[in-house]
Amino acid sequence: MIQKLIEKIQKTKAPICVGLDPMLSYLPEYLLQKSFDRYGETLEGAADAIWEFNKAIVDATYDLIPSVKPQIAMYEQFGIEGLKVYKKTVDYCQGKGLIVIGDAKRGDIGSTSAAYAAAHIGKVKIGSNVFSGFGTDFLTVNPYFGTDGVKPFVDVCRENDKGLFILVKTSNPSSGEFQDKLADGRPVYELVAEKVVEWGSESMDGNYSNVGAVVGATYPEMSRILRKLMPQTYFLVPGYGAQGGTAEDLKYCFNEDGLGAIVNSSRGIIAAYKKAPYDKFGPEHFADASRQAVLDMAADINRVL
Amino acid sequence: MIQKLIEKIQKTKAPICVGLDPMLSYLPEYLLQKSFDRYGETLEGAADAIWEFNKAIVDATYDLIPSVKPQIAMYEQFGIEGLKVYKKTVDYCQGKGLIVIGDAKRGDIGSTSAAYAAAHIGKVKIGSNVFSGFGTDFLTVNPYFGTDGVKPFVDVCRENDKGLFILVKTSNPSSGEFQDKLADGRPVYELVAEKVVEWGSESMDGNYSNVGAVVGATYPEMSRILRKLMPQTYFLVPGYGAQGGTAEDLKYCFNEDGLGAIVNSSRGIIAAYKKAPYDKFGPEHFADASRQAVLDMAADINRVL
Repeated sequence: MIQKLIEKIQKTKAPICVGLDPMLSYLPEYLLQKSFDRYGETLEGAADAIWEFNKAIVDATYDLIPSVKPQIAMYEQFGIEGLKVYKKTVDYCQGKGLIVIGDAKRGDIGSTSAAYAAAHIGKVKIGSNVFSGFGTDFLTVNPYFGTDGVKPFVDVCRENDKGLFILVKTSNPSSGEFQDKLADGRPVYELVAEKVVEWGSESMDGNYSNVGAVVGATYPEMSRILRKLMPQTYFLVPGYGAQGGTAEDLKYCFNEDGLGAIVNSSRGIIAAYKKAPYDKFGPEHFADASRQAVLDMAADINRVL
Repeated sequence: MIQKLIEKIQKTKAPICVGLDPMLSYLPEYLLQKSFDRYGETLEGAADAIWEFNKAIVDATYDLIPSVKPQIAMYEQFGIEGLKVYKKTVDYCQGKGLIVIGDAKRGDIGSTSAAYAAAHIGKVKIGSNVFSGFGTDFLTVNPYFGTDGVKPFVDVCRENDKGLFILVKTSNPSSGEFQDKLADGRPVYELVAEKVVEWGSESMDGNYSNVGAVVGATYPEMSRILRKLMPQTYFLVPGYGAQGGTAEDLKYCFNEDGLGAIVNSSRGIIAAYKKAPYDKFGPEHFADASRQAVLDMAADINRVL
């Protein structure tokens, strides 16, 4: 699966990923109102508005980008109706040829992780039939349980040609509280990184592994070290743009071949029309604003590669 | 919320929680067949069978127990149809007066954790209306992101009188890989425990906090230390029974007042009919087998209190 992602990155010349994390406050008022007129101020109404919002952004950007990353929490908050739109978004993006990274950060004891893996990147057997619940191409995974909580995800990757991004060093301000603690003189995130390499060695796909790592753009010094520790691990890099990470901060996430990382931006793309310099597009043209923001982001990153 | 749980524990004299984690392999063949006859070997068919299974077990045990803990992964693997049954199970259990611990182990950066908190224990605002997505009473949370990833959950607890159980030391074999690493001579799980106390101080409810901790039954020496570190923190204790934890292992999880812990059993209760001494009930009476297993588990735990 990682090779498919790399091919699409090379084709689009854009190592980026659009975070489809639609908060209701990002949606233009007119779009929200249209869905409310149809379904009322209900879970169905909110879900419908999010669907129309996603669809417009995907239609306006899919030819420029290799992948999208829907954050499932933003859909889960609207219960079943929200999750229906998550699934619909995954299917729609795949139909447009995009690689879909399900951002769910699941992780549990072995048998439970196996169920999550089946749900998101694998298959579930029912009698003599086989189904996939959400069917994304990649999934983000939380490593707190250690090897037996992660292995079921790795197994499903190998069996179904899917991929993972495992949390190593997250982009948020307090990520250091546990992740940076020194154990025998080395931060916990480095120990996690070594395990990611070990887990990933079981699912190589060309020069890179299907088992990638989440490495926040907001800690460039750490990404420099992690890049060396994990030469064959693809990085999913959150934190660019709205969270404060700049293109300069990102360069250590890439290998010398210009590969090795895919950078996510959510708010900065999908809510671009709300802020200068994209506010000139106006709410009616929010998707065009997103397209321009994608072009600018790709140029900004390519500048440092 | 923790006081409501304590009251129900005292009333039932059973500090236990039935894990509603229905794998299809736990279901009696005849029950599965009935749903397949109706809906085919489909996601709907599997979901319907799980619903009938859960309902029968809840009907047979609700008067004996304070709480249930549905593991959302087991529902998520059947996609939207599975999640509909998760929600239906939550509602049904609450209708029977049970306290529902949603076992979802969510956790992310702040804004995303806020969405998860809204989804599971909070509310979401849509126009001038307010809805709850899944509406459980407690939620399990993963602390890997540190304070800013956990605080949105704590805030929602305080605002909505709900509760949390935050992963401190998990029950699985490789939980020690990161959780036991010594940082300045102290294991990471102790550092997490101290943070849980700090976070919990913002949501006290009587002698205990609404912010509890997950402490596995399979590591009794560690629970002894954690009990002392977190005197006002309720423990959710997985790992009893099928995972190997015994009643003797549990006693350190409780305070001297006999409170402070609630012990989960999943397979050992819901699939009791599959194993001696409960196999004598037969598949048709699987729910009666579960009832007997609950009675035996409560007696076993009360023996050491």
